[in-house]
Amino acid sequence: VTPLEYLAARGDQILGELIEFAGIPSVSTDPLHRDDMTRAAEWVAGVMRDGGPIDVRIVPTGGHPVVYGEWLGAPNARTLLVYGHYDVQPPDPLDRWLSKPFEPEVRDGRLYGRGVSDNKGPMLIPLKVAQAYLLTRGALPLNVKFIFEGEEEIGSRNLEPFLTANRAMLRADSVLSADGAMWRSDEPSVTIANRGVAGLEFTLKGASRSLHSGRYGGSIANALHAMAEIVASLHAPDGRVAVVGFYDDVAALPDAERREIRELPFDEARFLAEVGAPATFGEPGYSTLERQWIRPTLEVNGMWGGYQGRGSQTVTPNEAHAKISCRLVPDQDPDEVRALVARHLETHLPAGVSLSIGGERHAARAYRIPSDHPGLLTAERVLEQVYGKKALRVRMGSTLPVSELFKRLLGIDTVFFSFSTADEDFHSPNEFFRVHRLGEGLEAWARYWESYARRSEQ
Amino acid sequence: VTPLEYLAARGDQILGELIEFAGIPSVSTDPLHRDDMTRAAEWVAGVMRDGGPIDVRIVPTGGHPVVYGEWLGAPNARTLLVYGHYDVQPPDPLDRWLSKPFEPEVRDGRLYGRGVSDNKGPMLIPLKVAQAYLLTRGALPLNVKFIFEGEEEIGSRNLEPFLTANRAMLRADSVLSADGAMWRSDEPSVTIANRGVAGLEFTLKGASRSLHSGRYGGSIANALHAMAEIVASLHAPDGRVAVVGFYDDVAALPDAERREIRELPFDEARFLAEVGAPATFGEPGYSTLERQWIRPTLEVNGMWGGYQGRGSQTVTPNEAHAKISCRLVPDQDPDEVRALVARHLETHLPAGVSLSIGGERHAARAYRIPSDHPGLLTAERVLEQVYGKKALRVRMGSTLPVSELFKRLLGIDTVFFSFSTADEDFHSPNEFFRVHRLGEGLEAWARYWESYARRSEQ
Repeated sequence: VTPLEYLAARGDQILGELIEFAGIPSVSTDPLHRDDMTRAAEWVAGVMRDGGPIDVRIVPTGGHPVVYGEWLGAPNARTLLVYGHYDVQPPDPLDRWLSKPFEPEVRDGRLYGRGVSDNKGPMLIPLKVAQAYLLTRGALPLNVKFIFEGEEEIGSRNLEPFLTANRAMLRADSVLSADGAMWRSDEPSVTIANRGVAGLEFTLKGASRSLHSGRYGGSIANALHAMAEIVASLHAPDGRVAVVGFYDDVAALPDAERREIRELPFDEARFLAEVGAPATFGEPGYSTLERQWIRPTLEVNGMWGGYQGRGSQTVTPNEAHAKISCRLVPDQDPDEVRALVARHLETHLPAGVSLSIGGERHAARAYRIPSDHPGLLTAERVLEQVYGKKALRVRMGSTLPVSELFKRLLGIDTVFFSFSTADEDFHSPNEFFRVHRLGEGLEAWARYWESYARRSEQ
Repeated sequence: VTPLEYLAARGDQILGELIEFAGIPSVSTDPLHRDDMTRAAEWVAGVMRDGGPIDVRIVPTGGHPVVYGEWLGAPNARTLLVYGHYDVQPPDPLDRWLSKPFEPEVRDGRLYGRGVSDNKGPMLIPLKVAQAYLLTRGALPLNVKFIFEGEEEIGSRNLEPFLTANRAMLRADSVLSADGAMWRSDEPSVTIANRGVAGLEFTLKGASRSLHSGRYGGSIANALHAMAEIVASLHAPDGRVAVVGFYDDVAALPDAERREIRELPFDEARFLAEVGAPATFGEPGYSTLERQWIRPTLEVNGMWGGYQGRGSQTVTPNEAHAKISCRLVPDQDPDEVRALVARHLETHLPAGVSLSIGGERHAARAYRIPSDHPGLLTAERVLEQVYGKKALRVRMGSTLPVSELFKRLLGIDTVFFSFSTADEDFHSPNEFFRVHRLGEGLEAWARYWESYARRSEQ
């Protein structure tokens, strides 16, 4: 049998493995899931070892381990660095899930569970493709170095030291990423750019304890009023970010590229129906796709204080909390944006409260691949073979910090070749992965390896 | 033995009974504590029955029951309606308590526990005074009708129908309330006015689910940004409430009464140290005491949405929630104030979100007792006997909805005669009750009954 036949015959078995993998609650942000992170890393290493003569190591980092594996038996072929991540977002809010987040369930051709789309389904694909080649042919078409990290959902903070320390080992022609997500379920696409991110948390404190709102109300600052005031000050009413200097380093996009975006098929009504919102909202002067892809944002991801239970509790809250993340576009520096936001908070601090800024360093620059990159052209060619139509060139509003890291530290570009889709509710309740994408992905990855193998081809 | 001697010899025993009573988590706002509410009502009825020939009934209402008891064996004496409540505030946030909220503990002369000060300690006092009289003399100095409700902390919403339905049974010369709290621990005081309250909750909704802040951020309204904007709009930056019409019905206080307030001993630095705040904050043109006593407020008691866990979750939250309560002064109508706030929310609704307003009806008008009321004069005389100095006339920022209800429905005024103190952190973690207040309260209530008994006296 050929590797493609081998894979085509094993769809259900591979789906079963994905269900097992996604059953491990590998929530990287939560220290309570540390053991699950270890379990997930071992699961990934196990699949590689079972596949054949891949040299596998679980490499400790300052945080969660990297699972590394390599097969270098094709001296005349190109070398790919294959990337994915085995960590997942927290499942909150739990009460919105129709089935348990860590007990994946197939309904109507979709697998529901935390991490099935981001990134466990997509990252399982190259592992199974390698297995298929090694079992049917005893060799891969090209050299492959697998790197699966456990900190993508928390900003890949230990990946940088890992890459720096292992430059020689990781040498490759380019990165092929199992992470990334296609734009649409009905149109194949390649992603040519993604936004960066910079995050922080802050707390406002008034009195030393929460006070009775009858006895003290009106005479001492209410931390929630102060929070509302300072958060409201972060945006102009029209949606523009009001932080001084926020747009200073934003690279303007050439008109030709804005025209390309305008020409993409995008139905605003369908988009609104999909997210269930009454209207779009954002920075004036830009379309919805531009707001998602080429403009920076500042979003409050969480904000809270005071009594949240049933009924009423008449307190004047003394503490209020918020988590913020900014999406960045080319030329914006994450540390500088964090500093601008911090300065804004300091200069807009309402009377009667103090400010403390914290939060982990969750930061990455934006990234853009050259339009004529051979790995990108290979992806377009393969997608046309698998789907029978031309792939769209799109951008991504979210952040894949690794692409910028691989470029900066290893000097290579990243091609995103994920078979999840942007609408699969990763980071939300009821995350799902379309089951048919598993088969399509297995075929596409096998074809990509065949096609990209020969240096002479480009 | 006299009733006073009887009581003086039983301080420890009565403290033990209070510890037992406060061990029942009678949180009226939380449906999970429904059985505890029943248990607390039965405990109160049990103490009355043990006291002697008091006719006791637990009367069901639309919510938690009223415990009613009467002793009417003094046909020539006055009749007092004695009021208190057996329900308590929720104990949240639990992690701030030094001892468990429902396992009361004495430390340094203070009993710590939820409800010990508001209102279980103070309401136990008249029960034990009645017991002392009935056991030592077989009679009370005057007629007493006890009414202990279980919904004070949730706006006494079923007290109005109860009072309306039982006007004849409840006929009395005045109300003596075990609820209310004195202003200072070192100065006896009588309270001549309290603020009213009007509350509501609201929710803002954008998309039908929370969205990935990378993919969608910047193109769809973030419910937390909208919440911050609308909450910030409720106040002017200087602290004034910005709701149109909010101050329209506020009765101006005569200059003489403002002067009385200015002449009270009040140390701003000591106040700030007590609440642990860096500065006072509130409506311009008024002192701290005026802001607490004679001016209306609008306070956000809780506000929340998005991710509150450890680390980060990059979501664009689609829902945000807030709980609001306003403190009212004479001539403001709670329903009208609620309507004004609701109209403000509707007219200030940010783009891209919808508004729903809910919350229980938590409403009461402000109240003021006439300066020459015989029950008030009795309280001042008794406090001078017990403490050896003149009682201050003060106001109360918080709400005791019953005083306005008793006046409106039964036509009688309420004298507040509580032996808790305003600084005892009710509605906050580590609520406490000064143990020595128990003995002082028992003596004072006994003297009050003796003194107020004879009609001719005034």
